[in-house]
Amino acid sequence: MKQLTSINELNTEIHQYKHLGNTIGYVPTMGYLHEGHLNLIEAARKENDIVILSIFVNPLQFGPNEDFDSYPRDIKRDLELAAKCGVDLVFSPDVAEMYPSEPSYTVIVKNRVNVLCGRSRVGHFDGVATVLTKLFNIVQPNRAYFGMKDAQQVAVVEGLLKEFHFPIELRAIETIREQDGLAKSSRNVKLSEQERKEAPAIYRSLTIAETAIKNGEKSKDIIIEQMMKSIEQNTSGTIDYIEVLAYPELQDIEVIKGKVIIAVAVKFTNARLIDNITLDV
Amino acid sequence: MKQLTSINELNTEIHQYKHLGNTIGYVPTMGYLHEGHLNLIEAARKENDIVILSIFVNPLQFGPNEDFDSYPRDIKRDLELAAKCGVDLVFSPDVAEMYPSEPSYTVIVKNRVNVLCGRSRVGHFDGVATVLTKLFNIVQPNRAYFGMKDAQQVAVVEGLLKEFHFPIELRAIETIREQDGLAKSSRNVKLSEQERKEAPAIYRSLTIAETAIKNGEKSKDIIIEQMMKSIEQNTSGTIDYIEVLAYPELQDIEVIKGKVIIAVAVKFTNARLIDNITLDV
Repeated sequence: MKQLTSINELNTEIHQYKHLGNTIGYVPTMGYLHEGHLNLIEAARKENDIVILSIFVNPLQFGPNEDFDSYPRDIKRDLELAAKCGVDLVFSPDVAEMYPSEPSYTVIVKNRVNVLCGRSRVGHFDGVATVLTKLFNIVQPNRAYFGMKDAQQVAVVEGLLKEFHFPIELRAIETIREQDGLAKSSRNVKLSEQERKEAPAIYRSLTIAETAIKNGEKSKDIIIEQMMKSIEQNTSGTIDYIEVLAYPELQDIEVIKGKVIIAVAVKFTNARLIDNITLDV
Repeated sequence: MKQLTSINELNTEIHQYKHLGNTIGYVPTMGYLHEGHLNLIEAARKENDIVILSIFVNPLQFGPNEDFDSYPRDIKRDLELAAKCGVDLVFSPDVAEMYPSEPSYTVIVKNRVNVLCGRSRVGHFDGVATVLTKLFNIVQPNRAYFGMKDAQQVAVVEGLLKEFHFPIELRAIETIREQDGLAKSSRNVKLSEQERKEAPAIYRSLTIAETAIKNGEKSKDIIIEQMMKSIEQNTSGTIDYIEVLAYPELQDIEVIKGKVIIAVAVKFTNARLIDNITLDV
């Protein structure tokens, strides 16, 4: 496995891959890899000749009250995991390589951002879209892999690829779960023993909604109420949001119809957990 | 020569070209072709296997007081000229093809914009950068051709390609001139007979500045004063601006050093003429 930190050196490699007719699968990350990332790498490994993983904690997507500096980093462990999972090349530039000066060109995202987690993270997706525009042009992948755990990010990237006409296929990979249904997350370890026992109720509330919808329920409000009840009765957490939106447009709907996402965020003492399902009704 | 209006159909062609290993030279225009454009096509013809010309009057780069609707269009004549000059493919999408809905993703340009002609065209270069980001991804050229007549646009595109890491080479083509030095422009026909006689004084003022700088003059203010005098004494036009800036950063300088642009805009009765030279001091 190669590790490169220079864009110029990466260019040379990419040029080689393209010249040889190799397809490139790309997994962009901020590092501190967990099972979710490894799942993306595995999916990329199956569909491409070359798998490129990038590790870059992007300052542009952190708000003024979000701590870029204390975001966890462990490049040594990440490289070991990447190598073990069959990554061909890790691209891990530093901030000066990606932003040699204050960005003069930025991508502004208007839709799909002021809902779900984006509501409280103003400008976050502008930073995501800007860094991905740069990384997509640098890596020039055939396919890019994102986890449905962060469904809003997938929706924003879907729009970015489509509206800017990147010749890249988006691969949205399903959330992987513990035996009891809890979505895997590095935050799960921050739950108390009791909270960990309660947490599967989040996914259970999503399956309750799914069943209700499959049985003909069309009202968004009724679905949300059922989910609220189920989470409130079975956990000590506080519901941050439960939203039912058109997917991937993330627009408000009253009647459940077509492609929808049901998304939920619950705050526990030291961890805020998110989960979602998408349905085609 | 092919003419396509659909992005999907163009994708298929581009895929073919790439598959055959053909290099693509790209000339983005708003149509109503004149000698300046043909000069770009000629340059592209010399350096690439395939020459693609796009014709798209981009609503996003017109301000509220700039008339998008009355911008001159003559697609029939454009196609004839393009064919005659050896263009392989003309891409002429309509507005609905390029913007099926209100843009949700836009590129915002912070530097290089609030000087020269950009000073009075707020948001213009955001529109240029946004449409070019889309077109570059659609056409996927090896080289893109722009005329130095609009040096500020070249500077903005240079930054866009560099900062977003597009794998595209920028080719900035020198302004072509009449025998008497006047920069060729479709606006020259709007000059009165007397104004047409005076207009070469604009370029002459630039050559005066060039000679003075080559002879050791380092003061921006002295250069600008000399140019003002020369234009005021020899034309009936009104000077809109004379600026001496670092190039391509378009930043203020006091002392003339390194790469600089000297740019001028003069208003005549029915035409505003611009011209510039770049120097490496």
